[in-house]
Amino acid sequence: MEPKTLYEIILELFQARKPAALKAELSEHEPADIAAALLDLWDDGEIREDTLPIIFRTMPKALAAEVFAEMDTDLNEALIRSFSDKELKAVMSELFIDDAVDIIEEMPANVVKRMLQSVDSDTRAIINKILDYPDDSAGSIMTTEYVALRPTMTVSDAFARIRKTGVDKETIYTCYVIDRDRHLIGLVTAKELLLADSEAIVGDIMEDNVISAHTLDDREEVANMLSHYDFLALPIVDKEDRLVGIVTVDDAIDVLQEEVTEDIELMSAITPSDRSYTRTGVWEIFLNRIPWLLILMVSATFTGIIISSYETALAAQVALTAFIPMLMSTAGNSGSQASVTVLRSISLGELEFSDLFKVIFKEFRVSLLCAVALAVGSFIKIWLVDYLLMGNKDITLPVIAVICLTLAVTVILSKLIGCVLPMLAKKIGLDPAVMASPFITTIVDTLTLFIYFQFATAILAI
Amino acid sequence: MEPKTLYEIILELFQARKPAALKAELSEHEPADIAAALLDLWDDGEIREDTLPIIFRTMPKALAAEVFAEMDTDLNEALIRSFSDKELKAVMSELFIDDAVDIIEEMPANVVKRMLQSVDSDTRAIINKILDYPDDSAGSIMTTEYVALRPTMTVSDAFARIRKTGVDKETIYTCYVIDRDRHLIGLVTAKELLLADSEAIVGDIMEDNVISAHTLDDREEVANMLSHYDFLALPIVDKEDRLVGIVTVDDAIDVLQEEVTEDIELMSAITPSDRSYTRTGVWEIFLNRIPWLLILMVSATFTGIIISSYETALAAQVALTAFIPMLMSTAGNSGSQASVTVLRSISLGELEFSDLFKVIFKEFRVSLLCAVALAVGSFIKIWLVDYLLMGNKDITLPVIAVICLTLAVTVILSKLIGCVLPMLAKKIGLDPAVMASPFITTIVDTLTLFIYFQFATAILAI
Repeated sequence: MEPKTLYEIILELFQARKPAALKAELSEHEPADIAAALLDLWDDGEIREDTLPIIFRTMPKALAAEVFAEMDTDLNEALIRSFSDKELKAVMSELFIDDAVDIIEEMPANVVKRMLQSVDSDTRAIINKILDYPDDSAGSIMTTEYVALRPTMTVSDAFARIRKTGVDKETIYTCYVIDRDRHLIGLVTAKELLLADSEAIVGDIMEDNVISAHTLDDREEVANMLSHYDFLALPIVDKEDRLVGIVTVDDAIDVLQEEVTEDIELMSAITPSDRSYTRTGVWEIFLNRIPWLLILMVSATFTGIIISSYETALAAQVALTAFIPMLMSTAGNSGSQASVTVLRSISLGELEFSDLFKVIFKEFRVSLLCAVALAVGSFIKIWLVDYLLMGNKDITLPVIAVICLTLAVTVILSKLIGCVLPMLAKKIGLDPAVMASPFITTIVDTLTLFIYFQFATAILAI
Repeated sequence: MEPKTLYEIILELFQARKPAALKAELSEHEPADIAAALLDLWDDGEIREDTLPIIFRTMPKALAAEVFAEMDTDLNEALIRSFSDKELKAVMSELFIDDAVDIIEEMPANVVKRMLQSVDSDTRAIINKILDYPDDSAGSIMTTEYVALRPTMTVSDAFARIRKTGVDKETIYTCYVIDRDRHLIGLVTAKELLLADSEAIVGDIMEDNVISAHTLDDREEVANMLSHYDFLALPIVDKEDRLVGIVTVDDAIDVLQEEVTEDIELMSAITPSDRSYTRTGVWEIFLNRIPWLLILMVSATFTGIIISSYETALAAQVALTAFIPMLMSTAGNSGSQASVTVLRSISLGELEFSDLFKVIFKEFRVSLLCAVALAVGSFIKIWLVDYLLMGNKDITLPVIAVICLTLAVTVILSKLIGCVLPMLAKKIGLDPAVMASPFITTIVDTLTLFIYFQFATAILAI
């Protein structure tokens, strides 16, 4: 027999009204798994607004708060609405500040008001401050719950402090050393503390070249820094270099994943959304996709205009029409290869705008090679397949020359446009991903047709 | 005056022959930054095979090993070739096993041989075992340097053990509890140990529901698990449930970033490569791109064949040609929106093959909405712009009907094909990213033309 899933266990014990057994079972599982099982039960209609709180209340307080932090927004909201003020207060006091902020950001105004009223005024001030940071800033993803040490402490003082305050801290593994004015002056890891003599002075063993970021720095750059340096946390300072919070590695991973999803969506002409595909409704998915499809459809008008204005040329050489899709798709693919490669390097922090000419030169050489290979490849293919095999007499040598020349020139131009546009976008503060695939394709399509008909009229004298 | 960059500092102190000052300077910087500066100096020809080792030798042993682990492969190789056996042994003994394995994997055979000879036979056996795991497996990215505790230890025994062995461990923050046969029976975090009574027994305070992965599990799934559970490390067990290693969060981030880059490259018809764009030569970039361009170019033959076979129809209704690019690109964009969304959900572990019908139903509803919006949008656009504004008398109501109908039908089909193909690919063990953008586009292009001419011949009676 297969072992029961958590979904089945919760459902069975809940329906059998066995809260003690349910509590024991849930205590054995990870918060993320419990949150996922509850979401599935919710989606399947097995639990509702009236039954969810009953299951939630069976969990021990600390676990309940962790599950709450991992939950989908819909379930958070349903729970908060059913909570008494006392219950809400209990959950809020157990949440880490950054998790509380994440949840508050997704709630409707009246729920936010209740949530903020349930915490003490100091916490409320901190939450409000974090909520004020711009969405894409380091400040918006940081937590204020870190261990702060003083440089004059001994290692055993430091441990005493960690034992006293550590239970509420998001991480105790990197401790930050601050002076009287809260300026960040050093850091020491729990590993260093553990391996040091208990009488050693924190100020002597701390690392005093601390890498930090600013509250208004871009959150993706901060996440990349954590990844680059293999840090577990990165300190965030304000304009006066005072320590105001830390960003932990688990939040950095979430940021990296979200930013990648956003890039991929923009690259595919989709308005990015915070919600996962499975949790997004049909209407919302439609709204995220249709504006781009309409814009791209209308911008394809240019290709139509070019074709219309060369109607007589096309009528004179009917074979030319058959190669339009191949030429446009090859140029489009060449361009998006370049744009996507450059875009990814920008996201990973490998390319700066100052590398522009290096990139152009590199792509130019790559595109020359591609142009030659594709021109030769298409010459062979057209000669063998279209001319010899299929015996299409419209395909003369001059026609083949027009096709191969167009291919070569457009591949080179597409790659150059593809690598330049994302870097320019980044320079002027746009998201470079917007300049990837579909826009490049539309520009490249128009250009390809234009060049094709230029060569056709010149070489074929039509 | 701007502060000097690390690049300038190294160059200046090296040229001034000040090894002591250089050592002091380097000790103040992060290994990742030193490795990056050395790479830039190397690329600019400021340091070479004969000078790199001189700079490297100024660093303290532990720092040197960390920089070595962060370095580009070319510099690793240059250094190893210049090392005496004794030096190589010193560096190898300082490296974490997983970093050593990463470097060995990139080296030519004769260098690998020397590296393996420089470590003791136990380490060699471990390295060889890790090298044997498949490239995409959890085993290939794990390290064997973790803290193992016994359930009978007290908390102070545990700290004694951490102090004794911890300095060589990749992380001491999650300690694994094993029985006599090395079966994984629990875990305890350094935080829990620090907050516990020193006489408490490890077996009593440990978490005994340990989430682990298997050596042969897919490395991307393992990285997703670390991200999902917010773990700092995940234990890896063999078939007999014996603990053989751990995967740490910094390596998990690297895996997630690499897998995303691979997905994005496949989505853009590029053969994935391990090296960053800036470190890849023109010839290699060309080889990664050209096969796909050629394949996609040749597969565009189908579109050519369809157009050729409807030559008479096109000649009778010349206006039809002008809309071919718009129809193909709209269908292509619709299809890639669906395929890319589904692909990303698969990568994030949100979608399984069992969700196939749910996804099809969702995409069907989205595509109906898109089809109506695009058909209406194009009707208005063609009527206003092409008919009224530009006075194109070829564009009759039946022609507009053919265009709008084609648009509606192909958008629906494209979205369905776009969502099904990546899921099927995953099911049969292919990388779903291969089924994204360009392949979808080629299929959709062909289909679009076919449907277009079916409607044209039926409605326009040509």
